[in-house]
Amino acid sequence: MNWQKFANDIVPADTEWRRRAADRLREQTRPAGSLGRLEEVAERLVAIQRLDKPSVSRKRILIFAADHGVTAEGVSLYPREVTCAMVLNFIHEGATINSLARLAGAEVIVADLGVDGDLAGVPGLVQAKVGRGTRNFCEGPAMLAEELDQAMAAGFKLGETAAHDGIQLLGLGEMGIGNTTSASALIAALTRRKPETVTGRGTGLGEEALRHKIAVIERALELHAPVLTNPLSIMQCLGGFEIAGLCGAILAAAKARIAIVIDGWIVSAAALAAIRLNPAILDYLFFAHRSEEYGHRLLLEELEVRPLLDLGMRLGEGSGAALAMPIIEAAARIYCEVATFAEAGVANRHA
Amino acid sequence: MNWQKFANDIVPADTEWRRRAADRLREQTRPAGSLGRLEEVAERLVAIQRLDKPSVSRKRILIFAADHGVTAEGVSLYPREVTCAMVLNFIHEGATINSLARLAGAEVIVADLGVDGDLAGVPGLVQAKVGRGTRNFCEGPAMLAEELDQAMAAGFKLGETAAHDGIQLLGLGEMGIGNTTSASALIAALTRRKPETVTGRGTGLGEEALRHKIAVIERALELHAPVLTNPLSIMQCLGGFEIAGLCGAILAAAKARIAIVIDGWIVSAAALAAIRLNPAILDYLFFAHRSEEYGHRLLLEELEVRPLLDLGMRLGEGSGAALAMPIIEAAARIYCEVATFAEAGVANRHA
Repeated sequence: MNWQKFANDIVPADTEWRRRAADRLREQTRPAGSLGRLEEVAERLVAIQRLDKPSVSRKRILIFAADHGVTAEGVSLYPREVTCAMVLNFIHEGATINSLARLAGAEVIVADLGVDGDLAGVPGLVQAKVGRGTRNFCEGPAMLAEELDQAMAAGFKLGETAAHDGIQLLGLGEMGIGNTTSASALIAALTRRKPETVTGRGTGLGEEALRHKIAVIERALELHAPVLTNPLSIMQCLGGFEIAGLCGAILAAAKARIAIVIDGWIVSAAALAAIRLNPAILDYLFFAHRSEEYGHRLLLEELEVRPLLDLGMRLGEGSGAALAMPIIEAAARIYCEVATFAEAGVANRHA
Repeated sequence: MNWQKFANDIVPADTEWRRRAADRLREQTRPAGSLGRLEEVAERLVAIQRLDKPSVSRKRILIFAADHGVTAEGVSLYPREVTCAMVLNFIHEGATINSLARLAGAEVIVADLGVDGDLAGVPGLVQAKVGRGTRNFCEGPAMLAEELDQAMAAGFKLGETAAHDGIQLLGLGEMGIGNTTSASALIAALTRRKPETVTGRGTGLGEEALRHKIAVIERALELHAPVLTNPLSIMQCLGGFEIAGLCGAILAAAKARIAIVIDGWIVSAAALAAIRLNPAILDYLFFAHRSEEYGHRLLLEELEVRPLLDLGMRLGEGSGAALAMPIIEAAARIYCEVATFAEAGVANRHA
C-alpha cells in the first residue's frame, strides 16, 4: 500500500458541524462554557461523526504486541519473555487493561504483530506476526520495507474491521519490552530533537541505565541519519512492529471517521508518525493522558494538544486510553441528553 | 447535636490497611508504581474501607439545593428562581448531572434544604426546607443557630441513610444561585485570606461585577469579624443551608467510613468546614476536580490535596464528582481484579 497516498486522502473533521455543536451546547441548562473541556470533547466528536446525536457507546481497545531487537543493548529492566507472558495475561483477562476496559465497556482485541514467542493457536489472539521481534536498530534498520508494510497493513486491517463493526471509539494500546526505546528514537527523529530530551525511564530505569538508553538511541540516530527523511523511513529504521501497526490502525480509523483514543508514550509515537503523514489526522485523536514518561509533556506541547487526564501513569497496555473513555462518553451523553433552557423552563440569565 | 463533639470521634483511615494495599499493588502484573495516582486512590480506598476487596459499586450523589439572601446584593447573573427550576430539572433528569450520574452508575438524590419556591409534594425530592433562602449576610448572620443545626442535621441524616443503604462512594453536589459568594466568604473566613484571593466569576461575572462581589464579601467579613472564630459560627454567619447540609453529610459519611467525592468550589467550602472540625475527615475525601472557579487551586494547595481531574469545569451540581467516580472505581477494580506476577506466570524484572 502507498501509505502516504492513502493518508493524503484523509479529510479534516467538519468545522460546520463543530459550530452547530457549540450552538447546541450553549442552549443546554447550565452557564455557558461551564463544562470546560468536556464541551470541547463534545464539539470534536460531533465534528468527527457529523451527527446530531454523537455516540461512543460501541468501544474497542486494540492492543498490539511485539518484541524489539534493541533489547539486546540492555535497555529494559524486564526480560523480553515478558511480552509473550503479558499477551497471555491479556487474553486471560488478568491484566490492568482488562479491568479498565471492562469498566469502560470496551472490548479488548489483542494482536501479535511480532512477539518473540510461540503464540500460534492462542484462542482469541489476532495472529499477525511479522517476525520474532525487530532487528537491533543499532546495527541496521529495525525492519525491512516489506516488514514495515506488513505491520502497517495488519494494523490497518484491524482499523478497517473496527469501522466495519460499527466501533465509535477506538482505544489503542501496546505491549513490547523495549518499546519505550523505540518510541523515543522515533520521536527524536520525527521532531528532530536530541534523544536526551525525549528519553525516559520506561518501566523504571535508574540514572545510569537511563544514560545508557540515551546513548543507544544516539548511536541509532547517527547510524540511520541519511535516511531519516520521512515518517515511513523513520518507522522502518527505528520503529517496532506494534508501533507500525498502531500507525496503520490510526490511518484506517481516521479515514473511517472514528474517534481514536491515544494512550501514552508509545501510541503517541505512532500517532506522531501518522500526523506527519497528514496533519488532518490530528482531528480524530483524543490524547488520553499525560504519561509520566519523560518527554511526553514535550511531545504533547509540540502537537499543541492537551490530554484529558494527568494521573502520573506510565503503564501502557492502553490503560490511559481506557481510563479516558468514560470522559469522552460523558461528553457525548451530555450533548445528546441534557435539556435546553427552553425545554426545562429555566431562565437563562436575567432578562 | 454537638457537631464539634461528633466530629472529634471520627478516626483517621487505617495506615496498616494502607500498607497492605501498597504491598498488593506491587505484586500485580505491571511495573511498580506505573499506575501513578490510581494506586494512591486504591490504597486510600482500602484504608477507608478496611477491606481486602474494596468496592465502590454502590454509588450515590446527593444534591443539596437552597437559595441565598446575599443575592439581594446582585452577585449573580441568574435570577434566584433558577434554583427552583433547576431542582425540577434534576428531578425530571434533564440536567447535566443526571447524564453524568447515569454514566457513572450512581443514583441521584436531590434535597431541598432551603429553596425559595414551592417544592412541596414534588415526587422524589427530599423535603428538608429550613427556610426560603438564608438571610442576606451583609446585614446579619445568614442563619440562626437553630437553622444551622437543622440544615446540618438534614444533611447528616442523608449521610446516615447512605450508610444504611450500603453506599460505598458518596458524591456531593449542590445548586443555589448566589452560592459561590457564600462559599468564597466561608473560605475567606476559614482560611483567613483576603476575599479577592478566593472570589471568582461564578456563573460568568464580568470584571466590574466581580469587583462588586468581592466588596460584598468584604463587607460581610467586616460585619461578622468578632464571631468568625470557629467553623460553626462561620457557617452560621456566612454559609448557605445547602452548604451546611453538605457539611453534615460529610460528618455522617466519614464517621461511617464511606469514601466521599468532593465536587468543586461550593462543596469544597463545606469540606473545609468539616476538616476544620476534625482534620482526620480529610482521609475520607476524594477531591474530584480542580474547578475553574478562581481560588479553587489555592484552596486545594492549602489542603495539600491534588484533584483527580482538571478539565476547566465550573458547573457544580456534583458534575465533577460524577465524572471522577469512574476513576475511583477503576482503582478499586484494578486492586481486586488484576493478577499477580506469580498468578500470571510473568517474570518480575530480571532475575
